Amino acid sequence: MARALQLARQGLFSTHPNPRVGCVIVAGGEIVGEGWHVRAGEPHAEVHALRQSGERARGATAYVTLEPCSHHGRTPPCAEALVRAGVGRVVAAMQDPNPLVAGRGLGLLRDAGIEVTSGVLEAEARELNQGFIKRMELGLPLVRVKLAMSLDGRTAMASGESQWITGAAARSAVQRLRARASVIVTGADTVLFDNARLTVRADELGVDAEQVALAVGRPPLRVLIDGQLRVPLSAAFFQAGPAWVACCDDDGRGDEYRAAGHQLLCLSRGDGHVDLRRLLLELAGGGANEVLVEAGPRLAGAFAREGLVDEYRIFMAPQLLGSSARPLLDWPLQRMAEAPQLSIREIRAVGRDWLIVAVPA
Amino acid sequence: MARALQLARQGLFSTHPNPRVGCVIVAGGEIVGEGWHVRAGEPHAEVHALRQSGERARGATAYVTLEPCSHHGRTPPCAEALVRAGVGRVVAAMQDPNPLVAGRGLGLLRDAGIEVTSGVLEAEARELNQGFIKRMELGLPLVRVKLAMSLDGRTAMASGESQWITGAAARSAVQRLRARASVIVTGADTVLFDNARLTVRADELGVDAEQVALAVGRPPLRVLIDGQLRVPLSAAFFQAGPAWVACCDDDGRGDEYRAAGHQLLCLSRGDGHVDLRRLLLELAGGGANEVLVEAGPRLAGAFAREGLVDEYRIFMAPQLLGSSARPLLDWPLQRMAEAPQLSIREIRAVGRDWLIVAVPA
Repeated sequence: MARALQLARQGLFSTHPNPRVGCVIVAGGEIVGEGWHVRAGEPHAEVHALRQSGERARGATAYVTLEPCSHHGRTPPCAEALVRAGVGRVVAAMQDPNPLVAGRGLGLLRDAGIEVTSGVLEAEARELNQGFIKRMELGLPLVRVKLAMSLDGRTAMASGESQWITGAAARSAVQRLRARASVIVTGADTVLFDNARLTVRADELGVDAEQVALAVGRPPLRVLIDGQLRVPLSAAFFQAGPAWVACCDDDGRGDEYRAAGHQLLCLSRGDGHVDLRRLLLELAGGGANEVLVEAGPRLAGAFAREGLVDEYRIFMAPQLLGSSARPLLDWPLQRMAEAPQLSIREIRAVGRDWLIVAVPA
Repeated sequence: MARALQLARQGLFSTHPNPRVGCVIVAGGEIVGEGWHVRAGEPHAEVHALRQSGERARGATAYVTLEPCSHHGRTPPCAEALVRAGVGRVVAAMQDPNPLVAGRGLGLLRDAGIEVTSGVLEAEARELNQGFIKRMELGLPLVRVKLAMSLDGRTAMASGESQWITGAAARSAVQRLRARASVIVTGADTVLFDNARLTVRADELGVDAEQVALAVGRPPLRVLIDGQLRVPLSAAFFQAGPAWVACCDDDGRGDEYRAAGHQLLCLSRGDGHVDLRRLLLELAGGGANEVLVEAGPRLAGAFAREGLVDEYRIFMAPQLLGSSARPLLDWPLQRMAEAPQLSIREIRAVGRDWLIVAVPA
């Protein structure tokens, strides 16, 4: 199963909106076939592994990181393929949270007389598809907020000056966060002041050529939250490719954006701000598993205040920006009792910087 | 030498103003004697080790974490004792930075025909006595600033509310930082608002009984920086035992403080603030190797701004205090170019909190 998970991870940048899945088929103590799901619309992991196994799949054990599907999607059901191949035993890491499957795949195998086990390395398997699972279960994507701060928790000078707080290794890690996301959400401030494009830059990914090809072949959707449509269509962000823009009111400019290849979404909350929750629902509806928020303290703070953040990825640079510099998140609190508790999952060195992974407690 | 360093570390809380030193004597591949310096005025590590070795020291190898002393202090020179015992070889981790020794101890041994090596595990040995070395070389103590902050770099709410940001394990680690320091420096704000005593609390040290006894037997000097003598003598800080107070002007109140068991130092910088550098020189003159600054953002920020900090020990709690909360250090900076660079030596979990050890780059 560890090998199957390793295979599944190969799809980190490309399976969306599908989950990342790996499969290993073992016969006589030997691996006779393996595979992983590469991208939506293409064969599932089990199909690759069965093809490689050929006749040796008969009576073999199939290890899969996710319950084999039982429904006809763009490809026929994998559970049926496993039955047809005559495998003797199926070990799954977890049930499929997809309501179209949800145990039916394993049931179909059991009904065919195949020995079925589920729950092997389940925590690792869930970790890999956290966004897909959340979307299936709650109709919302996983929201990951990327921030870069100094040791004293500041993101930029009061003047806005901020370039290059973190080093090359941290920037490369951010590229990988972008590449794995279905959607990157940013704000007008970031696009206007930093002239940000929020694209995936192949030369900074720091992964092998196959992974680079997968990442650039399936770039994340870029979504700009620009309530008052302040960012001109001439901005580098728009020049870098088609994007979505979430605004409060399209001022009749929908055609103008569409003509330039972009899409306007009117999601007013009625108070001059975009309704972030509705935006996330829209994105999940469109198949977004993981959303990466890369924005300034204002927009990132808004996601945090509304309880919409699943994970913070904070890159901490070894410097002090001082007490007049900008905060990590715009989130004024009066009393300790209101202070949100987090759980720090991991802190590790990334070049000369440090990455802090924290989740709401 | 690793064993000798381990022994030396036993004196972490008690050798001041002397360095921490360990000694192991090996004969025929076997340890025949070992010792460590316990407290000033008592025998040095070598004397303990030689006593234990007895006749077996003849021709043996002595491993010492610091060059044996050559001068008559409160105890006779250890280099002479090693010569008298007839050891065949001396391996030192480092030369003594004390100008009264500075190679003379090793020279004395060589002159007596003893084989001498120096520089074994030198980095580890220097680390253990960083404060002593700095005092000997520069006439200033090592200044360690302890801070407790939230993940977003804040130390308290704007109102001052701040109790219990960090958990029990972090507080215990702070007790050990206090116990190893020669001097604890705090400010009037901390003493007035937090009713702080800055004493070493035996029950929170989290070390064995022998180490607790050594720590409480040699408590650090507590120094309050109170330029305008705002803290009343009735404060818990003063009630907890004798202390020094650094002020700008004693207002003729020296006798009053002395009668209560305390000491007033007038160290005005001429601008209404205490001259921190002069204070550190005074403290080093009195034998302080390590100074721990436990203060609010204002005083800690003043030490930082004046370039007087050797090491930051920042305990980071997994919570957010928000953008209106108090900063880590009062240190307003305008431009990125002014932002002080640090080098992060270590980040590790301390209970549910994290300790960040950083030094100016």
